[in-house]
Amino acid sequence: MSTLREEALQMHKENRGKLGVHSKVPVRNAKDLSLAYSPGVADPCMDIYEDESKVYDYTMKGNLVAVVSDGTAVLGLGNIPKAAMPVMEGKALLFKTFANVDAFPICLDTTDPDKIVEVVKLLEPTFGGVNLEDIAAPKCFEIEDRLRKVCNIPIFHDDQHGTAIVTAAGLLNALKLVDKKIEEIRVVANGAGAAGVAIVKLLLNMGVKDVILCDTKGIIYEGRPLGMNRFKEEMARITNNEQKQGTLADALVGADVFVGVSAAGAVTKEMVRSMNPHSIIFAMANPVPEIMPEEAKEAGALVVGTGRSDFPNQVNNVLAFPGIFRGALDVCAKEINEKMKLAAVYAIAGLITDKELHPDYVIPDPFDRRVAAHVAAAVAHAAIETGVAQKFVNTENVKEHLLTLAEEKQPAIV
Amino acid sequence: MSTLREEALQMHKENRGKLGVHSKVPVRNAKDLSLAYSPGVADPCMDIYEDESKVYDYTMKGNLVAVVSDGTAVLGLGNIPKAAMPVMEGKALLFKTFANVDAFPICLDTTDPDKIVEVVKLLEPTFGGVNLEDIAAPKCFEIEDRLRKVCNIPIFHDDQHGTAIVTAAGLLNALKLVDKKIEEIRVVANGAGAAGVAIVKLLLNMGVKDVILCDTKGIIYEGRPLGMNRFKEEMARITNNEQKQGTLADALVGADVFVGVSAAGAVTKEMVRSMNPHSIIFAMANPVPEIMPEEAKEAGALVVGTGRSDFPNQVNNVLAFPGIFRGALDVCAKEINEKMKLAAVYAIAGLITDKELHPDYVIPDPFDRRVAAHVAAAVAHAAIETGVAQKFVNTENVKEHLLTLAEEKQPAIV
Repeated sequence: MSTLREEALQMHKENRGKLGVHSKVPVRNAKDLSLAYSPGVADPCMDIYEDESKVYDYTMKGNLVAVVSDGTAVLGLGNIPKAAMPVMEGKALLFKTFANVDAFPICLDTTDPDKIVEVVKLLEPTFGGVNLEDIAAPKCFEIEDRLRKVCNIPIFHDDQHGTAIVTAAGLLNALKLVDKKIEEIRVVANGAGAAGVAIVKLLLNMGVKDVILCDTKGIIYEGRPLGMNRFKEEMARITNNEQKQGTLADALVGADVFVGVSAAGAVTKEMVRSMNPHSIIFAMANPVPEIMPEEAKEAGALVVGTGRSDFPNQVNNVLAFPGIFRGALDVCAKEINEKMKLAAVYAIAGLITDKELHPDYVIPDPFDRRVAAHVAAAVAHAAIETGVAQKFVNTENVKEHLLTLAEEKQPAIV
Repeated sequence: MSTLREEALQMHKENRGKLGVHSKVPVRNAKDLSLAYSPGVADPCMDIYEDESKVYDYTMKGNLVAVVSDGTAVLGLGNIPKAAMPVMEGKALLFKTFANVDAFPICLDTTDPDKIVEVVKLLEPTFGGVNLEDIAAPKCFEIEDRLRKVCNIPIFHDDQHGTAIVTAAGLLNALKLVDKKIEEIRVVANGAGAAGVAIVKLLLNMGVKDVILCDTKGIIYEGRPLGMNRFKEEMARITNNEQKQGTLADALVGADVFVGVSAAGAVTKEMVRSMNPHSIIFAMANPVPEIMPEEAKEAGALVVGTGRSDFPNQVNNVLAFPGIFRGALDVCAKEINEKMKLAAVYAIAGLITDKELHPDYVIPDPFDRRVAAHVAAAVAHAAIETGVAQKFVNTENVKEHLLTLAEEKQPAIV
């Protein structure tokens, strides 16, 4: 019996990667050539020259997303700048498989934030959107912020927002089960990397009033002498209302929710016992969670989610990014803004009915075929509502139209 | 009846461009996901981390070419930086159709040579080769030169070398027909842009001893006071043995070959009459040649080629670039060097037997299915011979092996 390693290497080698480019039009003779290339191609060019927005009609740009990485924070592998291509190709494959988005992997020969910003900006005419991937914190925050300002296409760092959106969706459903209001809960997050920071910001936007963020040095508070940077200082200002100091264990006393994007074993049963009754735990360290689900439940947690497919409630970004870009592209959105992210959260959460809700089912299955289209429709609608859609949707029932549009584009996952 | 314009616009719009990305592996369930993405994808990553050359085994890089343009010299349309995407997509389509190379269009948001060089270098980890396209002269020369120095993958400006290679192949065959030796002919080229300069350099490399290059200001000679730049100064030094001055008409007196990459009507019947008997004319101005074939023949030319598909002997780059990159990729070549270009010339010319040779058939048809594979095999062989192939071919009959390899990869042009 072959191991996963052997199977994975074999599969990659056999196919020489996982993606290819294919032609959508035939070139069999001089006539075909004259339409697809010279002289016929001059006409779409001149139309675009006169009206730049037509590039979305005549080229692949309108369905094309770049998956861009400098390879500095690749999965659990860390800083492997020259070896990230299989992951980026895999990510692009998921875009294609789950939402029929043409995604293209771009591995950069630099880890310098200035150069990353420059090269992505220079690539803008080609792509309808950019998914930043596996770029180390804290520079990932700066890179995304700067690119969002200079680009007129969606820029989305999935390690931040994808994880945050799926976690938030799970939390919304979990709160229904434990009958707690989002404004009244205390959340403790552990891990101040890309995902941790984005989760906290998204939860604040959703109405959470009491959040404490921890890292390896414990609770983050303003002016903490060790292990700070300007992004953590900002987090310290917007969280930790009482400016508590102490350890993760101190923070968890009386908390309702734990969100871990940190390291195996960071949370003990003791710590969970110190939380409020009916606690909710998202322990997303990979491959070994901050606390194993059965231990967390023994210690009083009611709902537990992890990053793993072999436990219930898997927080898998594939529930978010394919549909989010599908929706953004369907209306030629100029950006992916907060309202669009929130729309994705509610769309994912909303796929589980109150009747279906269960401590082991607060997040849809990654292979639930409905997810991408519903997320896409919600995101596209939010883009229109917030004025960032460049494509006008001329119909009475916009939401239904967008869902049909996204569903039509969805490939069959057999 | 619809016009070509209407048909071309309709075709581009219907398909939203001409290319798509497709997946080569299925993702139907958690097992598939674990092979194509986390955690299985970690294994090819770590293998590449330990041995960078394995990126050619495990990713799409080994069959992937970027078609990169700044849009400053697009077909006959000129400088349309923001509107070149349909042409680049079309070029990529031809790579795919004619040689099964996965080619990807990249339109840059800059026309600055320094930035173009920088961005292509930063993209190097992703691609197995770069085809520069429709970049204005003279900066195209500098950009290609600099990129060839800093990159470890083939860099090839097709507007220069593709045109030069096909023209040279046609010339070789034409010389057989008129029974002239390449060392003894006088060639006059008109047009000192990308193609003109490359054609002259290639012919010199092939043994032509007497070449005069002209531009709109007439014969190019050292120290000419008007319309010079450092690239033309270099051309003046390596051509025009007698450092003649004068007009194109002056240059053509007693010439054997005219090569035009200039403008409609640049050559008159009078000028052709002043050439040596059995003259050879490649009049490649598009869409209207320097002189129409029938006029050239009336004035004494024996062989006439143009850029048009409705006349015999079409100089079409599609005879060169797909096979050249196919061959370079098949052996993971680090560059496309002069020997490889020459190999392409002889391969294209050699597909027409002495018996088949005819004044109206010195260049194969663009849709001749044999071309790409034969060019690929010759180019790959030259890469091995010149030590730039990174993939070892372990077989006795290397040439035959390479041809089979290329033929297997060739898609059916139905």
